[in-house]
Amino acid sequence: MTDTELKCRNAKEAEKNLSIASTNDKNKALLLIAEELKNNKDYILGENKKDMKAAEENGLPKVLLDRLLLSSERIDGMAKGVIEVADLPDPVGKTLSEITRPNGLRVKKVSVPLGVIAVIFEARPNVTSDAASLCLKSGNCSVLRGGKEAIHSNTAIFNVMRAALKKSPLPEDCIQFITDISHESANELMTMNKYVDVLIPRGSARLIGTVVKNSTVPVIETGVGNCHIYVDKDADLNMAADIIFNAKTSRPSVCNAAESLLIHKDVAEKALKLIKKRLDEKNVELRGDKAAKEILPDIKEASDDDWGREYLDYIMSVKIVDNIDEAIEHIYKYGTGHSECIVTENDEAANEFMSRVDAAAVYRNASTRFTDGGEFGFGAEIGISTQKLHARGPLGLPQLTSFKYEIFGNGQIR
Amino acid sequence: MTDTELKCRNAKEAEKNLSIASTNDKNKALLLIAEELKNNKDYILGENKKDMKAAEENGLPKVLLDRLLLSSERIDGMAKGVIEVADLPDPVGKTLSEITRPNGLRVKKVSVPLGVIAVIFEARPNVTSDAASLCLKSGNCSVLRGGKEAIHSNTAIFNVMRAALKKSPLPEDCIQFITDISHESANELMTMNKYVDVLIPRGSARLIGTVVKNSTVPVIETGVGNCHIYVDKDADLNMAADIIFNAKTSRPSVCNAAESLLIHKDVAEKALKLIKKRLDEKNVELRGDKAAKEILPDIKEASDDDWGREYLDYIMSVKIVDNIDEAIEHIYKYGTGHSECIVTENDEAANEFMSRVDAAAVYRNASTRFTDGGEFGFGAEIGISTQKLHARGPLGLPQLTSFKYEIFGNGQIR
Repeated sequence: MTDTELKCRNAKEAEKNLSIASTNDKNKALLLIAEELKNNKDYILGENKKDMKAAEENGLPKVLLDRLLLSSERIDGMAKGVIEVADLPDPVGKTLSEITRPNGLRVKKVSVPLGVIAVIFEARPNVTSDAASLCLKSGNCSVLRGGKEAIHSNTAIFNVMRAALKKSPLPEDCIQFITDISHESANELMTMNKYVDVLIPRGSARLIGTVVKNSTVPVIETGVGNCHIYVDKDADLNMAADIIFNAKTSRPSVCNAAESLLIHKDVAEKALKLIKKRLDEKNVELRGDKAAKEILPDIKEASDDDWGREYLDYIMSVKIVDNIDEAIEHIYKYGTGHSECIVTENDEAANEFMSRVDAAAVYRNASTRFTDGGEFGFGAEIGISTQKLHARGPLGLPQLTSFKYEIFGNGQIR
Repeated sequence: MTDTELKCRNAKEAEKNLSIASTNDKNKALLLIAEELKNNKDYILGENKKDMKAAEENGLPKVLLDRLLLSSERIDGMAKGVIEVADLPDPVGKTLSEITRPNGLRVKKVSVPLGVIAVIFEARPNVTSDAASLCLKSGNCSVLRGGKEAIHSNTAIFNVMRAALKKSPLPEDCIQFITDISHESANELMTMNKYVDVLIPRGSARLIGTVVKNSTVPVIETGVGNCHIYVDKDADLNMAADIIFNAKTSRPSVCNAAESLLIHKDVAEKALKLIKKRLDEKNVELRGDKAAKEILPDIKEASDDDWGREYLDYIMSVKIVDNIDEAIEHIYKYGTGHSECIVTENDEAANEFMSRVDAAAVYRNASTRFTDGGEFGFGAEIGISTQKLHARGPLGLPQLTSFKYEIFGNGQIR
């Protein structure tokens, strides 16, 4: 048995205890984890230094170095995140519905954990404690596999969490960490149907694509967001400019940032000039279609490739459309089902957009940046699902559960 | 573009209309389908004869021949099934929750269709109209692929449904049927992530295993049921015998039939003799462990293989257990997460079994045969899900939907 298989099996075994653990016991374990994270800063920071040194030597881009870097404040932030999860309501054991059938059978639908959740992620070490604590609170054992760049940091965080679990009423084995960072181990994890119930990839489009293609374990796809903002002919153009400025520039590296702008031709000239002026404050590069370039001759021309791109940068594509149909068709063709927005004062146009656009979150007159577990009032989240099966949008604690039917009879036969 | 890809693409295109179609239009189409099925009996029965002739020539087993056979009554049954689906409530467009955030954003969660559902099934031609009508009512386009044994029957039923759609307000393309029955076409369908949102395999464990292994499209696993009945030391033994007789013999070929019997050692002798007497009425073959054979020396000995088998026949394995823990552990090891039952008058034992056994349906004092969309009050079903992601247990219309968030603002930025 390989190390990866053994860890998955141990998680499955620990599931028996964790799935029926009390809220109190789970919260105790979470608070111990938070405490140990704060108590072991020196150890974690020391290990993080090793990763940072290797990353610098390997010439990792600056943005990745920043993701990888831990500090005393960042570890406090991780601990705070774990405490916040302890404060969230327990999603397990809720009666979701209950009916009594004419034959007297009582059919009760009760929320239960999913079981064992594997999370494959990339450079951010904080995902280790985030993902583990969300899984734990929802009664799920976790099998974590981070990127090789963060292997020392992740291992340290994991060791600290395990030490905390040892002092807790829960089995240590309910959190597992895969140290074998070979491709073989990744492929093995993706086919552990016997022990793993769900696999959640968190990271780049490439990582997610690889997991979807190779996993036989059910996957929840997360995160790729080619988000559009459509400025309707009946838009309040100042509001549109504010929303676009916020959606593009408040944090360009995240999946709910806007990437592409669609503007109705009747307001194109006025809107585009106004929007350009706002985006210039942050030096956003616009890439336009022919019609957009006629209005702003100095911007770059968009290639066919641009419409499908998630830039995650201070770049935005812009296209002038003849009508709302063309906008919806364009989103249909290039959208990734994450977050889409219409800016309009016209109820009819808004209704059409809301009902016809197929995405996890569809906005009228608000920034796409709100697609987030916290902003939706779910508390923490483990990612944003862009698929339609199981859960869509922010994956909070309730989305990490399944259900079962408990049926009570007194001898009924069929 | 292959024929399979073209059909998937056409379904995806038709989704744009079907997903927002009114309940009225969907019901109209369903009633037209039912009418056309009844009007075209001769054609369908003629095509079914071709399949039956080929099947007899190929020496198909009698049980498969019976599944394949259509009759005037069976076509009436199919039409009746379609009408019943029209009568069920529309699961689309329901507001599942609605909150207003402190910043004034109104976040509404609304049920939407999944999109395009592919169904891969085996010998029963009635699945063609069943699956298509459930998908249609839930706003989903369907891509159907039946077994090669039923190709003429399925094609005929499909042609009749398409003719009905032509007269309806819905796009014809919302039902597709794959006529290419090669392995290549099946593999192609399983990787049509671009056009297909969900794949539901209906049939044997082998078919389901193949689909889980090869599909990159999200799968809902259905149907394999190695269902256990545990007779506790505090069971009403007559009730136990009635439940076991019903669960084993009322329809042995279906997935919710019981396959394995676990009996507490304290009541083993009395219970087993009583149960054996009932099962003898239907000549059920028992295969027992050592302890069971000591009580009933004439029964066959169970091999290690027997504990994991879904017989779908008049055969049942039986094991004597020391306590409820051993019963739960055995189910944990060999169960398929379908339906499990405890017979007991003891509340504590019942609670323990209900909470610790991990299956779609867990019963106290009732036959496992009740795991069924109709019996649970959901109306028709497209299968029984044995996985934990998305939906578990009977897949009725609400389980064929996803949701989206509609967010209404007045210029909110983050």
